[in-house]
Amino acid sequence: MGGRAQGGAGRPVVLDAMGGDHGPAETVPGALAAHRDHGIEVLLVGRADDVRRELRRHGGAGEVDVLHADDVVPMAERGSGAAARRDSSLMVGCALARRRRAPLVSAGSTGAVVTCAVRAFGRREGVLRPALAVALPTLTGSTVLVDAGGTADPTAEMLAQFALLGASYARAVLGVADPSVGLLSIGAEPGKGNRLVREAAGLLPGMPVRFHGNVEGHDVLAGTVDVVVTDGFTGNVVLKNIEGCVRTTLDMVAEAGIAPPGRLAEVARLYTADTHGGAALLGLTGTVVVGHGSSRSAAIARACVVASELGADDEPVPAVGRASVGPVA
Amino acid sequence: MGGRAQGGAGRPVVLDAMGGDHGPAETVPGALAAHRDHGIEVLLVGRADDVRRELRRHGGAGEVDVLHADDVVPMAERGSGAAARRDSSLMVGCALARRRRAPLVSAGSTGAVVTCAVRAFGRREGVLRPALAVALPTLTGSTVLVDAGGTADPTAEMLAQFALLGASYARAVLGVADPSVGLLSIGAEPGKGNRLVREAAGLLPGMPVRFHGNVEGHDVLAGTVDVVVTDGFTGNVVLKNIEGCVRTTLDMVAEAGIAPPGRLAEVARLYTADTHGGAALLGLTGTVVVGHGSSRSAAIARACVVASELGADDEPVPAVGRASVGPVA
Repeated sequence: MGGRAQGGAGRPVVLDAMGGDHGPAETVPGALAAHRDHGIEVLLVGRADDVRRELRRHGGAGEVDVLHADDVVPMAERGSGAAARRDSSLMVGCALARRRRAPLVSAGSTGAVVTCAVRAFGRREGVLRPALAVALPTLTGSTVLVDAGGTADPTAEMLAQFALLGASYARAVLGVADPSVGLLSIGAEPGKGNRLVREAAGLLPGMPVRFHGNVEGHDVLAGTVDVVVTDGFTGNVVLKNIEGCVRTTLDMVAEAGIAPPGRLAEVARLYTADTHGGAALLGLTGTVVVGHGSSRSAAIARACVVASELGADDEPVPAVGRASVGPVA
Repeated sequence: MGGRAQGGAGRPVVLDAMGGDHGPAETVPGALAAHRDHGIEVLLVGRADDVRRELRRHGGAGEVDVLHADDVVPMAERGSGAAARRDSSLMVGCALARRRRAPLVSAGSTGAVVTCAVRAFGRREGVLRPALAVALPTLTGSTVLVDAGGTADPTAEMLAQFALLGASYARAVLGVADPSVGLLSIGAEPGKGNRLVREAAGLLPGMPVRFHGNVEGHDVLAGTVDVVVTDGFTGNVVLKNIEGCVRTTLDMVAEAGIAPPGRLAEVARLYTADTHGGAALLGLTGTVVVGHGSSRSAAIARACVVASELGADDEPVPAVGRASVGPVA
């Protein structure tokens, strides 16, 4: 790594140059945009020839450091397979990020990034499982959805911890001093929900968060609470459902011929990775942002900005109020 | 019940006049609209004084039959509590619908309607659990979402049956000859999902439906498949998430000042109960349509039309391909 001076206010960011559907063709211009527009130092990890070719194509040769990694994790690779590819841009990037105490950004497959990042960084003290958090725009601000796909089958104790991780993220990224937390369910009344949610609803009042109670599907974008807590299966379905629903609704408006398509694209952009910059993986000793696989350069740049801004949060996470849970007393 | 001649082509419908947030103030004009605009004979069940007062207010005294029921199930009542109220409009309505072999419509709380309807009608032969189905509009047609909230914690065998029930509904209501069925998950590849979905994915290829494989959250409104199968927790969250997301997206378009609000309301209406008419409860020996609690008269009328059109489907449901499942060989 060259002795380049740190470019700007934010922390330097390690970027998996081979991650995502488009690889260096989008990650490289994304890194250049993060550097040029936001003064962020980006360290690109990937096949040096491919990365340098893209850098030259965008007039950025020498502007961003490159670390060579021979191998690439295919998008269809599962987590355990990805972790076995020690020479991949993802694994080399994870190791570099850990050594440099720098945030990592990858638009690789979520499962692969989560598995590799957990192995490289390890969980923060007391954390049972990591969770993905996404900040979704509402009419009045943003709502953090957690878990958006990190842990598909959590326990109630894990859900209760996700509330803490999500609140911490809302404080750091949205600047909300005392975030309210809602538990996603199928009725606002206590006692409504599936087994997992009913059990978690019993734990959350004992946690050090401002627990609002149950919220429902229509509350996610309504700004009812600052943080919506759910399991990684439901959260991932909801996140992708929102993407699809915004698209379909705007297509219907466009078909009705009542708004100019160009202006509708502005609204559509609010719900793409170009704006929200991907999901933060919470609960590890390092900072990790997972971009959407389909990320274009603007989304990559945004993910680098978010990663750079996310403070290192190494404080232990309190255990859930049961004697038997978690390694922390 | 008076000897009134059947009004139109559809089957007569029993309507819980006290159900929903607004009670007779909306159910009575809804019943009159179903009768006047669609020739459907509606039997109103509820507090006769209240119902008759509303009938007079809408110039419909004597136009629709009324059966008195003393009690009302409060919207916050849980399923078992509702079933204990034997003199309620819901329980009296269920009993009447069974005797008359007529469809039942109620905008009461979903849990209460499901519990009471299951007790009154019983499950069809071979059905493990009932499921709620909603037809959602897409750009090119409709997609059936099942289960939209009937069974929050189903087994994989139940999910596999929901696929059959949903396909049967798509044939009956959408007129699709050979509906394709997708399993809602968090990745299109086989093997992606939570434990329940991974198990169900192993059962579905053996079922007598055209199984497409996994679909994701963004596929629900994209028209990828005719039927999207999921558990009642995820399905209910998705359904309400869509309602909220359409509203927020249109509000954002309105705020941007790029489309006339009146025309946007046309798009919004596609995703309200006014248009889709509520959810059908599948798997019982009778026909039951559960309206949204907030239903206004137009939604009630639409629910009556859907209930009247839904054919009685008493055929046994095939068991899932495992020796140990279900009462049917």
